[in-house]
Amino acid sequence: MPHLTVEYSANLAPFPERKALGELNEALCASPEVQTEADLKTRFVCQSSFAVGTESGPRGFVHAQLRLLAGRTPEAKQDLAERVATVLRRRTPKPEGMLVQLSVEIVDMDRPSYIKERL
Amino acid sequence: MPHLTVEYSANLAPFPERKALGELNEALCASPEVQTEADLKTRFVCQSSFAVGTESGPRGFVHAQLRLLAGRTPEAKQDLAERVATVLRRRTPKPEGMLVQLSVEIVDMDRPSYIKERL
Amino acid sequence: MPHLTVEYSANLAPFPERKALGELNEALCASPEVQTEADLKTRFVCQSSFAVGTESGPRGFVHAQLRLLAGRTPEAKQDLAERVATVLRRRTPKPEGMLVQLSVEIVDMDRPSYIKERL
Repeated sequence: MPHLTVEYSANLAPFPERKALGELNEALCASPEVQTEADLKTRFVCQSSFAVGTESGPRGFVHAQLRLLAGRTPEAKQDLAERVATVLRRRTPKPEGMLVQLSVEIVDMDRPSYIKERL
Repeated sequence: MPHLTVEYSANLAPFPERKALGELNEALCASPEVQTEADLKTRFVCQSSFAVGTESGPRGFVHAQLRLLAGRTPEAKQDLAERVATVLRRRTPKPEGMLVQLSVEIVDMDRPSYIKERL
Repeated sequence: MPHLTVEYSANLAPFPERKALGELNEALCASPEVQTEADLKTRFVCQSSFAVGTESGPRGFVHAQLRLLAGRTPEAKQDLAERVATVLRRRTPKPEGMLVQLSVEIVDMDRPSYIKERL
């Protein structure tokens, strides 16, 4: 059930999405919180229209959002966020002279109303 | 005020978005929870950079997120999720040999800070 | 840390994204809630596959979602939403005869699991 979405600003392209997708899914599926590997869906989204702050100068960002059914402990959430950050720290391009920010957010999904099935 | 976003993996294209948009909005607006039909905004997003799990083999997904102002009962949320799922079960392509997963998530939006108006 | 995403329906194009990005970031960074201007990341997303309600006739929307670490007061959230709305009211195209809806949503992000760093 986990849904991971990684956005990055277009000035970080080319982003090694294919490699990062594989490594993110390996890192998260190795967590005891992810019981069925096929449940994890990860996507990359390149944002071409963006602004970071108000001052000038080259700035980029990569932001990951991981959505899981509610009920994880704070420690489990921190571990999952760190797994994502570890991959993105390594794979995110760092263009010379650009301020590049990384962020990872964990979101609880409402459990009683969640629907999941195979078609 | 409801916002519905349906994402699908690009390996499910062509997705009958036009038909699904009409049917989703009809199904949701028929709910007593949606009081003004024009309030419902639905969008489809095709995700071209994605990975499902860690094992190989063709896999696809369709994921719907419905965002509503907080305050609905659990039963109302389950009913809304089921309305979305009913349409997507019927309309989502199921390519031969592909594992296709469907999920529907309901999200409460913060009511006091929400702004809505006609321009 | 604030993340702002503004979606608009493609029938509002051309949307003055560049001007709106600058004004949104100026308006939000002027708030006491945003302590470091470089923390604010704003993106525009044009949605080309959408439907508003069930009745016919030209309809468009612009929807902004601002995600902040949890802990703001209700008043602070309302102020932030109003800052976003003020810019979008001014900058959103209003094609003749089209019903155009504006909405702004504030989302609390889980603080203990949030990761933020410069690469």
